[in-house]
Amino acid sequence: MTILDTMLAANAEFCAHPPADYTLEDLKKSKLPQKQVALITCMDTRLVNFLEPALGIGRGEAKVIKTAGNGITGVFDGTIRSLLVCIYELGVKEIIVIGHHECGMANTTSESLIKSMVERGISKEAIHMIKKELTEWADEFHHPEQNVIDTVERIRLNPLIPADVPIHGLIFHPRTGKVDVVMNGYT
Amino acid sequence: MTILDTMLAANAEFCAHPPADYTLEDLKKSKLPQKQVALITCMDTRLVNFLEPALGIGRGEAKVIKTAGNGITGVFDGTIRSLLVCIYELGVKEIIVIGHHECGMANTTSESLIKSMVERGISKEAIHMIKKELTEWADEFHHPEQNVIDTVERIRLNPLIPADVPIHGLIFHPRTGKVDVVMNGYT
Repeated sequence: MTILDTMLAANAEFCAHPPADYTLEDLKKSKLPQKQVALITCMDTRLVNFLEPALGIGRGEAKVIKTAGNGITGVFDGTIRSLLVCIYELGVKEIIVIGHHECGMANTTSESLIKSMVERGISKEAIHMIKKELTEWADEFHHPEQNVIDTVERIRLNPLIPADVPIHGLIFHPRTGKVDVVMNGYT
Repeated sequence: MTILDTMLAANAEFCAHPPADYTLEDLKKSKLPQKQVALITCMDTRLVNFLEPALGIGRGEAKVIKTAGNGITGVFDGTIRSLLVCIYELGVKEIIVIGHHECGMANTTSESLIKSMVERGISKEAIHMIKKELTEWADEFHHPEQNVIDTVERIRLNPLIPADVPIHGLIFHPRTGKVDVVMNGYT
């Protein structure tokens, strides 16, 4: 069975037999996050179905933004755009950047990515077009904790984000689920 | 208790009493997604702890990328960068774009965002700096299904993504959990 068919079969089963704790109240959940918080975190597969429960975040409680290495790639990149919608339309009052130990981005380099791209037949022209940006992004990430500090600071300095929104930085362990505070946005 | 303190208290409780189904095998999960798939979806709070289980996706099985409106904002935006890492370093073989009904982005406009920003004291200079990009992004999203089609096509046409990677488009219902296929990337 293909990946897509496996997923569709699982979905049919889910809809036919929703989880026992799924109630009528769940059906009516609002798109406004009850805890008025946005999480910015990583696409890492070990965080799936793990990070939110480990932080006590349930369905309907937080906005969750995820990219490779939970970073900001420009003053108006997808994460910043998402945050604008969170803050100005959805009642988000605090932002939490959550990096994690053992983040793959610490080992990824522009050189390793370009080597794989060439092997997969990506054109030299296309690679040339993004090489500078790719290098600045991929080669800048060395330490997940430092990356959290950098991301918090980039959001804090962004003139589109109100100064009264606390921005915290946490680091998460993708095996144990433990978090530690890197930056406390209240202070 | 503050949002951050609530979350830290929940985390301490989680670590002291991990879920009963959390095993030693979980502790050792790889960062490589077992189902070799990347999901691109929305930051909507109703999808948290709901979308992945509704698709039969467990911890360790998929990379998950999330932004407002599951869109692509440029040829080398954060989502495309994340996909490069997925494909060239983490063994991802298929991509699934998952929009959802009742997406807040369908109602968000640059006008409503700018009005709120001005009310919150954001400088006219900062708004002016991003106004054109903001308009192109926020005012272009009208229908979640059409947005899925557009996003799939943008990834398909991106010269950095190998032609042999199927890209599917799904639409998810944030209340019932049901998915429907918008684009089948195998055909």
